[in-house]
Amino acid sequence: MNHHPRATLTVEILTTQSVAAASLSGERMITSLAKTTRLSTPYVNRESDLSNFFAPASIAVVGATDRDGSVGCTIVRNLFDGKYTGKVYPVSLHREQLFGHPCFKSIGALPEAVDLAVIVTPADTVPGIVAECVDAKSRAIVVISAGFKEKGPAGAELEAEIRRSIQGSGTRLIGPNCLGLMNPSIGLNATFAGVTPQSGSVAFVSQSGALATAILDWSANEHLGFSAVVSVGSMLDVGWGDLLSFFGKDPNTQSIVIYMESIGDSPSFLSAARKVAALKPIVVIKAGRSQEGSRAAASHTGAMTGSDEAYDAAFRRCGVLRVQSIGELFHMADVLGKQPRPRGPRLTILTNAGGPGVLATDALLQNHGVLASLSADTEKALNSFLPPHWSHANPIDILGDADAERYGHALNVALADPETDGVLAILAPQGMTDPRLVAERVRTRDALGKPLLASWMGGVEVAIGRQTLQSCNVPVFSFPEDGARAFQLMWRHSENLHSLEEGPLSIDDKTSNHLRPPIDDIVMQALSHGRTLLTEIESKAVLDRYSIPTVRTRLAKCETEAITRAEELGYPVVLKLHSETVTHKSRVGGVRLNLANREQVRRAYCAIADEVTLSASSSAFMGVTVQPMIQAEGLELIVGSVVDDQFGPLLAFGAGGKLVEIYRDRAVELPPVTTNLARRMMSRTNIFRAIKGMRGNKAIGVNAVAALLVNFSNLVMAQPRIREIEINPLLATVDGLLALDARIVLFGRETPDDQLPRPAMVAGDV
Amino acid sequence: MNHHPRATLTVEILTTQSVAAASLSGERMITSLAKTTRLSTPYVNRESDLSNFFAPASIAVVGATDRDGSVGCTIVRNLFDGKYTGKVYPVSLHREQLFGHPCFKSIGALPEAVDLAVIVTPADTVPGIVAECVDAKSRAIVVISAGFKEKGPAGAELEAEIRRSIQGSGTRLIGPNCLGLMNPSIGLNATFAGVTPQSGSVAFVSQSGALATAILDWSANEHLGFSAVVSVGSMLDVGWGDLLSFFGKDPNTQSIVIYMESIGDSPSFLSAARKVAALKPIVVIKAGRSQEGSRAAASHTGAMTGSDEAYDAAFRRCGVLRVQSIGELFHMADVLGKQPRPRGPRLTILTNAGGPGVLATDALLQNHGVLASLSADTEKALNSFLPPHWSHANPIDILGDADAERYGHALNVALADPETDGVLAILAPQGMTDPRLVAERVRTRDALGKPLLASWMGGVEVAIGRQTLQSCNVPVFSFPEDGARAFQLMWRHSENLHSLEEGPLSIDDKTSNHLRPPIDDIVMQALSHGRTLLTEIESKAVLDRYSIPTVRTRLAKCETEAITRAEELGYPVVLKLHSETVTHKSRVGGVRLNLANREQVRRAYCAIADEVTLSASSSAFMGVTVQPMIQAEGLELIVGSVVDDQFGPLLAFGAGGKLVEIYRDRAVELPPVTTNLARRMMSRTNIFRAIKGMRGNKAIGVNAVAALLVNFSNLVMAQPRIREIEINPLLATVDGLLALDARIVLFGRETPDDQLPRPAMVAGDV
Repeated sequence: MNHHPRATLTVEILTTQSVAAASLSGERMITSLAKTTRLSTPYVNRESDLSNFFAPASIAVVGATDRDGSVGCTIVRNLFDGKYTGKVYPVSLHREQLFGHPCFKSIGALPEAVDLAVIVTPADTVPGIVAECVDAKSRAIVVISAGFKEKGPAGAELEAEIRRSIQGSGTRLIGPNCLGLMNPSIGLNATFAGVTPQSGSVAFVSQSGALATAILDWSANEHLGFSAVVSVGSMLDVGWGDLLSFFGKDPNTQSIVIYMESIGDSPSFLSAARKVAALKPIVVIKAGRSQEGSRAAASHTGAMTGSDEAYDAAFRRCGVLRVQSIGELFHMADVLGKQPRPRGPRLTILTNAGGPGVLATDALLQNHGVLASLSADTEKALNSFLPPHWSHANPIDILGDADAERYGHALNVALADPETDGVLAILAPQGMTDPRLVAERVRTRDALGKPLLASWMGGVEVAIGRQTLQSCNVPVFSFPEDGARAFQLMWRHSENLHSLEEGPLSIDDKTSNHLRPPIDDIVMQALSHGRTLLTEIESKAVLDRYSIPTVRTRLAKCETEAITRAEELGYPVVLKLHSETVTHKSRVGGVRLNLANREQVRRAYCAIADEVTLSASSSAFMGVTVQPMIQAEGLELIVGSVVDDQFGPLLAFGAGGKLVEIYRDRAVELPPVTTNLARRMMSRTNIFRAIKGMRGNKAIGVNAVAALLVNFSNLVMAQPRIREIEINPLLATVDGLLALDARIVLFGRETPDDQLPRPAMVAGDV
Repeated sequence: MNHHPRATLTVEILTTQSVAAASLSGERMITSLAKTTRLSTPYVNRESDLSNFFAPASIAVVGATDRDGSVGCTIVRNLFDGKYTGKVYPVSLHREQLFGHPCFKSIGALPEAVDLAVIVTPADTVPGIVAECVDAKSRAIVVISAGFKEKGPAGAELEAEIRRSIQGSGTRLIGPNCLGLMNPSIGLNATFAGVTPQSGSVAFVSQSGALATAILDWSANEHLGFSAVVSVGSMLDVGWGDLLSFFGKDPNTQSIVIYMESIGDSPSFLSAARKVAALKPIVVIKAGRSQEGSRAAASHTGAMTGSDEAYDAAFRRCGVLRVQSIGELFHMADVLGKQPRPRGPRLTILTNAGGPGVLATDALLQNHGVLASLSADTEKALNSFLPPHWSHANPIDILGDADAERYGHALNVALADPETDGVLAILAPQGMTDPRLVAERVRTRDALGKPLLASWMGGVEVAIGRQTLQSCNVPVFSFPEDGARAFQLMWRHSENLHSLEEGPLSIDDKTSNHLRPPIDDIVMQALSHGRTLLTEIESKAVLDRYSIPTVRTRLAKCETEAITRAEELGYPVVLKLHSETVTHKSRVGGVRLNLANREQVRRAYCAIADEVTLSASSSAFMGVTVQPMIQAEGLELIVGSVVDDQFGPLLAFGAGGKLVEIYRDRAVELPPVTTNLARRMMSRTNIFRAIKGMRGNKAIGVNAVAALLVNFSNLVMAQPRIREIEINPLLATVDGLLALDARIVLFGRETPDDQLPRPAMVAGDV
């Protein structure tokens, strides 16, 4: 164990992104790791030019039919009946013609190599047809048919056959088990959905065909337009990474909207998303937030850190905005596509009615937003033309008798305030306020590169005003709460994008060894004895090598030795069980605090021996560790890492101590972290406020913890053999940090080095 | 101070609800207390038969005009042009006729005593006109005009004149400064809003005219119908209590919807709401959630407990459902009006598509809902007719090829499961699923008294199905998330209603003194020395009288005395500053823990004296208290009370210790509490899980804390002189509870007994 092949492998797979690398040892690794769906879709092809799918000059439909209500019939009709002007070739064994068009017996019988083949035949015929398509140099295949891996081993074997056919051929494949795809701008509807949506600027990628159908049906009422719609199915070949890269370059796409059930190949998604998110908003709704796996965990970190939090961390890290509802999914795509990004969190609310302004403020602050403070200049400017009773604060209530002139003037002043990062303009229909004229004023504002949102409240009375606003790309909400929440989501999106700007870390094998000191001796010692749980002393030794300060901890195997150690360290001391099998020492009576003299140490030693033998077993007791009792006033923190099925190792930070699972005050991040990322991670906890508020030099606490988190992250990145690691409590005092307890669990010998989990984020991505 | 006139007064005002009681000492009390708007509207009249407002046979409009766009013109037109069939008399000094109807010079000149007078004349003319109305025996007046107390003292004087006119006359008054009122079922629109909404079963009470206008405009598109709409304005006379009582009895009203800016007279609202909520759902949106007053507080309880949490507690306590957005306000009124209340929190989700089912589950669990577990019988029944691949769990996914027969059958099975309290039926348009036929099946289900909600996803394809569902009172949501959230709100509403069922407490003067032991000696002692802050020893003495166990605490005024006390108590001990001025002892270095011997006690005494003298003043140091160092393992809790401007004393309970303001893990409730209410209050905190999980007999911890909360509530109810009181930490161990520290702040002598705040909840209300 003196080398780390995993790290090398990871870099290779992800930097070359070649078929070859993955099909070597990677393939094996992938199978063993994919407990849920992670990596179940290995890389097959890597070109992300998917234009044959979305702008084909010719399409073949294999399995075409005129049987009413069938999938094959609906697709052919959608292609013939729409505005699609390319060639469409129905392929059917049984028919000479369909809907007045000639039919062909096979792909091979077509007069040309089609750009896109859509296959709707039974699953067992699909591998043969795919092979024909490859032979005929069709470069894009959509397999609508179901009946593959979701049906068991026989179906999985069919998938493997398909994979072998396309491998290295340059032909790409979407599906199987999907709804198909659409490009409304050229009238292309290669799905069996009944509705072709309007053309627009949103690319919609859905992992559920049924949901896509429902949303397309709904979108017609909402006047939503799409640049593309694609149902990804099982992602045998084309996956998130390909689609994100393609839509990132697609000039018709301004924002990308994703319905996700599971991420599958997380590095591919993260890598592509990081590149595309800097250019175009990516908004995702990820189902299954509540389906936390019940993890069998030896640590608080493991018990508390759900895989959904890993999704949160991953999306945040790659600049993707996660939302909570389908409505928000499309509203935010619209808003982010139309309006500039806020450069800060401070919203100003302008209103002609008090109540709606307060409701918007409530919604903003409940979503942890920030209400802008009006600058003195702004207040002065507003005083110069507003009636004396105006609110003199944000929300700027310009009163019920405001006309368009007053409204427009106030809006320009609000937008110009340097302490405002965006404006929500609210209008309630009132006597003197003409919703249309005010909207005209809003149209001609100078927004100075700041986002502007509107809520024209009401129905018919504000309808024309709303149209005016929409026509000049100002998103309009029925209720002010939704506008305020949207601004806060815009700011969250901006913040996520900041993560992309973190400079690269040097975490690769070329880095000198002092950044990744080996722990092989400790690991070997444990594994060779059949242990995956390190003792407290071993765990602290590991931390020590990564410059994480630990409390002095001495082993004692009898009463006399315990007293000797205690006197070396100085009273008062703590005695803790030393065991190779017990993970939760205090639960078996294995901890005695604040021992002030020889006699107390002696008694504590015996008490631990007795209690542990009683509540666990005699072999569980292997002596005690003796540690000085730390009486400094301080904060108890927790730092940990646990391996997630989808994302590899995760970092967790938060409030520690015994009540850690009660408060669940913690933040989760993907390693590796920079100092900035570590600070941002800390700032998502409540305990952060206490760290900042520590007496003495305030910056010391925060900086020291951030530096420790970076070291901890390096440890986790460098040591994939670690399955769980936790420091709890990490005591933070004005004098510094001290790990009072630590536990580490390893992957056992049944997991060879090259099958250890890899981190989802890699050096080039950070 | 050996009697408690406040308690007597409170009971009198609220039980007799007479003019007389309030106009005596109550009037003075009210004025001094009303820091914001609380009690600024004293009771003037008490009959809550408001039928002259909502079903008048004749109406006079004083200030009628034909000037286009004016309020007076719009109201007259709304009355003449609508379907209202009663008599309408325009009253104007300047016109002979209006819109072809004869005009009258004054109320006195009318041919009959009208049921309702609507006044839209300038503020300074209103008192005279009101007096005329009273003379003419008009029993209901709406004052639309603005320009009263919101304009300053002159306006307030006009209000006082009006109040004198109507007092004792039997005439009731809505407004001033309001939009007016509507009763769509008789075509009555006595407002200046442009839209008359549809007739329906929702009574809408708004504290903002502008918001009401916007909502009415919006409601037309949403096909919302109203039994009444009323804008309450300044609530000079008719207030929440009157309107709630009236709509509670109104047979046309099935649910009551409120937009509230401030509660004003909280006992009147709470008392009426408690009675009505048992009969009809009351849904409220309260603006200003984020406007927590920055309270100058001597305790954590004071610093943390915002008045918005008091609103939450009050609404919960009186069975009112509080929602977060205007959309939810009306949806919930609709849902609660149409569907039975769930008898438990367990929702079953039935779906023909996986993704939407997962989204609904996410939304349910994020709102702290409960997904039902299918009973074995239900699973067996479903197995008997569903295809083998169905989900075999909740959500019940009956797969994309489900027809109406399968859907209907599964729905009936789901509804019949005794472990299910309600069902959300989801449909996504798919090949074999006809949304209309499935809706027909849903229509004929037997819901067994359980709520049934639906989400028919999509647009045109599901439109007819949605209509079918709506026609049989099944609420339909566009997205399944909203349906799940609605069910959770229904359950919260049911839970709130449980509070109403708590039996009455005997908190009145007839109760024997042992339930309300006096503390007058301690209070007098402090007040006579000009102190409102009690010392720790005094505070603990107060707790002691109310059976709250406190740690033994001895005063020591010199080193020798400290040592003597320490040896009496036994080492180790704690020394704390004894001071009549310092509230935060640890901030001035006034706490020394874990002192093991004479020498340590001596040094600690000197250190406290030195540090306090340095960081506070020499007079701040008056010796120390000596207490045993409690080393038992336990939980640190906090129990406190603070007086709120709107609601009087509040109770707070939560996690205590030094990080109390970091975690803010607490629940707020209005006193008095029963044991059940105390338990429910505790269950809203995180620390509750830790209390339940305490080793030993689990019930002891929870029951002991609940009993202590009841004692504490009795103390707060009985001792209105207490402004703030806090026990922190309250140590909970398996051996019991112990208050380790306590602080009490009193109302000073400038507040006489009869001006002390009264609790919002009174005995008869509990």
